[in-house]
Amino acid sequence: MSDIRTQALACRDAATAIAALDNTARRLLLLDMAQAIDSQTDTILAANEKDMAQAAAKGVQGAMLDRLRLDAGRVATIANAVREVADLPDPVGQVTRRDQLPNGLAIERVRIPLGVITMIYEARPNVTADAAALCLKAGNAVILRGGSEALHSNTAIAAALHVALQKHGIPAAAVTLVEDLRRETMVELLQLADIIDLAIPRGGEGLIRFVTEHARVPVIKHYKGVCHLYVDKAADLTLALDLLIDGKTSRPGVCNALETLLVHRDVAAEFLPKAAAALRQRGVELRGDERSREQVPDMAVASEDDYAAEFLDLILAIRVVDSADDAIAHIRRYGSDHTEVIATTDQGTADAFVHALRSAVVMVNASSRFSDGGELGLGSEIGISTTRLHAYGPMGAESLTIERFVVRGDGQVRHPQSRA
Amino acid sequence: MSDIRTQALACRDAATAIAALDNTARRLLLLDMAQAIDSQTDTILAANEKDMAQAAAKGVQGAMLDRLRLDAGRVATIANAVREVADLPDPVGQVTRRDQLPNGLAIERVRIPLGVITMIYEARPNVTADAAALCLKAGNAVILRGGSEALHSNTAIAAALHVALQKHGIPAAAVTLVEDLRRETMVELLQLADIIDLAIPRGGEGLIRFVTEHARVPVIKHYKGVCHLYVDKAADLTLALDLLIDGKTSRPGVCNALETLLVHRDVAAEFLPKAAAALRQRGVELRGDERSREQVPDMAVASEDDYAAEFLDLILAIRVVDSADDAIAHIRRYGSDHTEVIATTDQGTADAFVHALRSAVVMVNASSRFSDGGELGLGSEIGISTTRLHAYGPMGAESLTIERFVVRGDGQVRHPQSRA
Repeated sequence: MSDIRTQALACRDAATAIAALDNTARRLLLLDMAQAIDSQTDTILAANEKDMAQAAAKGVQGAMLDRLRLDAGRVATIANAVREVADLPDPVGQVTRRDQLPNGLAIERVRIPLGVITMIYEARPNVTADAAALCLKAGNAVILRGGSEALHSNTAIAAALHVALQKHGIPAAAVTLVEDLRRETMVELLQLADIIDLAIPRGGEGLIRFVTEHARVPVIKHYKGVCHLYVDKAADLTLALDLLIDGKTSRPGVCNALETLLVHRDVAAEFLPKAAAALRQRGVELRGDERSREQVPDMAVASEDDYAAEFLDLILAIRVVDSADDAIAHIRRYGSDHTEVIATTDQGTADAFVHALRSAVVMVNASSRFSDGGELGLGSEIGISTTRLHAYGPMGAESLTIERFVVRGDGQVRHPQSRA
Repeated sequence: MSDIRTQALACRDAATAIAALDNTARRLLLLDMAQAIDSQTDTILAANEKDMAQAAAKGVQGAMLDRLRLDAGRVATIANAVREVADLPDPVGQVTRRDQLPNGLAIERVRIPLGVITMIYEARPNVTADAAALCLKAGNAVILRGGSEALHSNTAIAAALHVALQKHGIPAAAVTLVEDLRRETMVELLQLADIIDLAIPRGGEGLIRFVTEHARVPVIKHYKGVCHLYVDKAADLTLALDLLIDGKTSRPGVCNALETLLVHRDVAAEFLPKAAAALRQRGVELRGDERSREQVPDMAVASEDDYAAEFLDLILAIRVVDSADDAIAHIRRYGSDHTEVIATTDQGTADAFVHALRSAVVMVNASSRFSDGGELGLGSEIGISTTRLHAYGPMGAESLTIERFVVRGDGQVRHPQSRA
């Protein structure tokens, strides 16, 4: 048997032990994990220094290097995030529906854990603790496959988590960190359909496409967030400008940042020059169609590719549209099903926009930047799904569970002639 | 562009038209579909005769041939099943959760259609109408890929459905029947991840494994139903015998039939001889372990394979166990996560059995044969999932929808410094 299969089987056995814990026990386990992270801060930082030195030697710099970096404050933040997950409401065990059938059968739909979840992710070492905490909170075991650049840091964090698992008598395999980072091993992991219940890839589009192409286990993911703001003719333009600035500039490198602005032709002359000035003042490069360039002549010409792009940068594509229907058609064509925003004071237009678009999150008069598990009240977020299956949009602990059927009877048979 | 991709794109466009219909319109559409099936009975029967003749020429016989056969009564049943789906509660549009956040954001979780669903199935022509009706009821478009042996029948049924679609101004592509039945075309279909939201295979384990191995679109399925009845030491043995006979003999060829009987050692001597007599009287072949053969000496010896088998036939594997925990361990090892039954009067044992097992359906003192969408109150059933993701157990129309987020604000931004 291959090493990765052996590891995965051990994780599945550990999943049974995790699933048997009640919420009190899972909470205490997570609090001890946070404590172990705190008390092993020095070890974690030493490991991180090795990763940083290797990355620097490879020429990694800037934002990439910063994502990898830990310091005492960041380690404390990681531990506190685990504490927050510990205190979330119990996502398992709830009876979500109850029916009593005429034949006397009592049917409950009850939330149970998924089983074994594998997370495939890139540089940030905090994902190791975050993902483990959320999976365990929902009663699952987890197989973590991080990036090679963070291996020392991830190993040190996992070692701290294992201390807490051991204290609670749970096999360390409940949080399995894959140390063999060859691509073929990841492919093998993603094909263990008899062991693994779900794979969640987090990272660049290339990683996510690789996972999707090679997986035989179910995958929940989003490739990218091409989020739109449509400024309707009935928009409050001051409000619309706030949403635009927040959506584009408050954190341009994340998936819920705005990438495209659509403006109704009736308000383009009033809105676009103001918007362009405010955005440029904040360093945003603008790329527009012909009609938006009529309002802001020194704007670059937007290409077809610009409208499909997730810039992850201070760049905005702009188009003037003739109607809300045109905005909807544009979003259907270029969108990524992630998050769309309409700014309008017309309730009918807002409802039509919401109904016509099937993106995971649709905002009316609110910033796309709220499309986030924490901001939408899910507690911590394990990812955002545009898979349109199981979960759609921000995913919290509950998305790591599933409803099953429990049926209680007093001897009901389906065919009465079956009675002895 | 390949033909199948062109067809799938047309289906996706039609999905937008279906999603725009309200429940009243979807209901009328389905009632007209039922009407069209009724009025085209002769055409459908003529097409079915061609399929029957081809199948007979190929040497198909017995149950296989019977599954393919239509007559006027069966066509009427198909039409009536569509009427039943028409009258199901609307599975889309419901607000499943509502939150108001401290910052004033109003968050709704709303059920929307999945989009485009593809059904891959074998001989029974009724699936063509059943699957189309359920997918449309939930606001989805569907791509149907049936078996070659039923192609004439499926084409005639789809033609009837198209008459109703045309009457309602919906593109026929909303119900697309794939007529190119080459395996490579099915593989291509299953890889259209940018178009198709879900594949549901229904048929033999071979077909389902083929679909799972080749799909890049999400797949919900179950391979087989190895359903267990555990007769506890505290069981009402008369009740247990009823469940056993119903589970094993009322329809042995279906996935919710019992395949294995586990009996607590304390009641084996009393229960097994009676059970063996009752089952043999109904033509059931028994295969047991050593301890069950002590009670019923002329029973065949069960192999390891027998305990993992879905016999789909009048054969039952039997084992005597030392405890409920042993029964749980046996089911964990050999089970298929489909449906398990405990017969016991001990509430604590029942609860422990339910909690320890994570099968999709767990029955206490009720027959495994109730593990069916219709019997559990879901209305019509599109399939049964052991995928443990999105849906787990019998799947009705609601499983063909997903919850998304709708957020209404009055200008909330995530970073107050974003205001202009």
